[in-house]
Amino acid sequence: MNSITCHISISLDGYVAGPNQSPEHPLGEGGERLHEWALATEGWRSQHGVEGGERSTDSEVIEEAVRDVGAYVMGRGMFGGADGPWDDTWTGWWGEEPPFHAPVFVLTHHERDPLAMRGDTTFTFVTGGIESAVAQARDAAGDRDVAIAGGASTVQQALCARLLDELCLHIVPVILGAGDRLLDGVGDLHLRPVTVVDSPAVTHVTYRVGR
Amino acid sequence: MNSITCHISISLDGYVAGPNQSPEHPLGEGGERLHEWALATEGWRSQHGVEGGERSTDSEVIEEAVRDVGAYVMGRGMFGGADGPWDDTWTGWWGEEPPFHAPVFVLTHHERDPLAMRGDTTFTFVTGGIESAVAQARDAAGDRDVAIAGGASTVQQALCARLLDELCLHIVPVILGAGDRLLDGVGDLHLRPVTVVDSPAVTHVTYRVGR
Repeated sequence: MNSITCHISISLDGYVAGPNQSPEHPLGEGGERLHEWALATEGWRSQHGVEGGERSTDSEVIEEAVRDVGAYVMGRGMFGGADGPWDDTWTGWWGEEPPFHAPVFVLTHHERDPLAMRGDTTFTFVTGGIESAVAQARDAAGDRDVAIAGGASTVQQALCARLLDELCLHIVPVILGAGDRLLDGVGDLHLRPVTVVDSPAVTHVTYRVGR
Repeated sequence: MNSITCHISISLDGYVAGPNQSPEHPLGEGGERLHEWALATEGWRSQHGVEGGERSTDSEVIEEAVRDVGAYVMGRGMFGGADGPWDDTWTGWWGEEPPFHAPVFVLTHHERDPLAMRGDTTFTFVTGGIESAVAQARDAAGDRDVAIAGGASTVQQALCARLLDELCLHIVPVILGAGDRLLDGVGDLHLRPVTVVDSPAVTHVTYRVGR
């Protein structure tokens, strides 16, 4: 049986994106500071087709995070910004060869044909809600895992629907002060820390989520 | 030179106390869940004059947290509830022999004579604000450390005044959903994780705070 996982970078004050998200700041103002630790790693760079980066504990965490992922679920904002109906020429933030290399199921309110990109990423647009998106991703993933990629609202929907097995927080020592909080409105979760890995840049805590 | 430290238990969604604090619920509703890990330890129990408890990683963290503390600073709520003027017979939440065994400086708006308790705890009431309280605690502590004991508002004042050298968060895997958030309104802090200790119950991360 595959697992439903979520790896997400979070500020020490609980935000996964900064305020005032826009095409210029898809992660919100200051939100890029949540991802600096990842961008420095060889693991992240090789997934994104960029050379260089450090071999480090953080790099291993990133490589392991995607190793067993067979499909992704993400929100419309993470795919390509505010909800459409998008112009069908809009292929999202992720360029011609997105870094997922797997089926990606995008939560949206607007139907659209699947979008096959280079490098084995196909975006499938799901209008039936989080349960439907996760069910389709699970089918596509076979015996591999499904990763909830973000943003905050999509992870919250998965938590509220008790769909998530594992939540890995990359706790970054920055204070954003505003933006999208990950753990608002999710009710009383049963969480159990199962692994902790730390580096000078970030503390990675994986929680098992009770259903 | 002594350090100004703060050890505080925090929920995964960032609260250090639950909502609706009252004499029946001094930590707010659900707030006691933040401290269950501590109450299970021999370290906490011996400080509070209670027998038993576990020898564990968590117990060592607690013992180390108080080992070098020469004085404490706390808010009026942590001493004894909503601000006074208190009846001078009110000696706070902590019983006749409080667990501090050191000088404690209490932030308040109402002057009051110092209160000497059994077991070498003396509460001194400070009306001059956080800088004054920390300065007095520093003098009292000599070459030992000063611990900011809480609650949220007092720690925020110390962070905003850039008085804190070290912030140790005991990150407890519970979601409180409401209450007192620790890291709201503290501005952009420069934090660096220096040690991480984990147990099945809680993740202890110590941050060095840049001034």
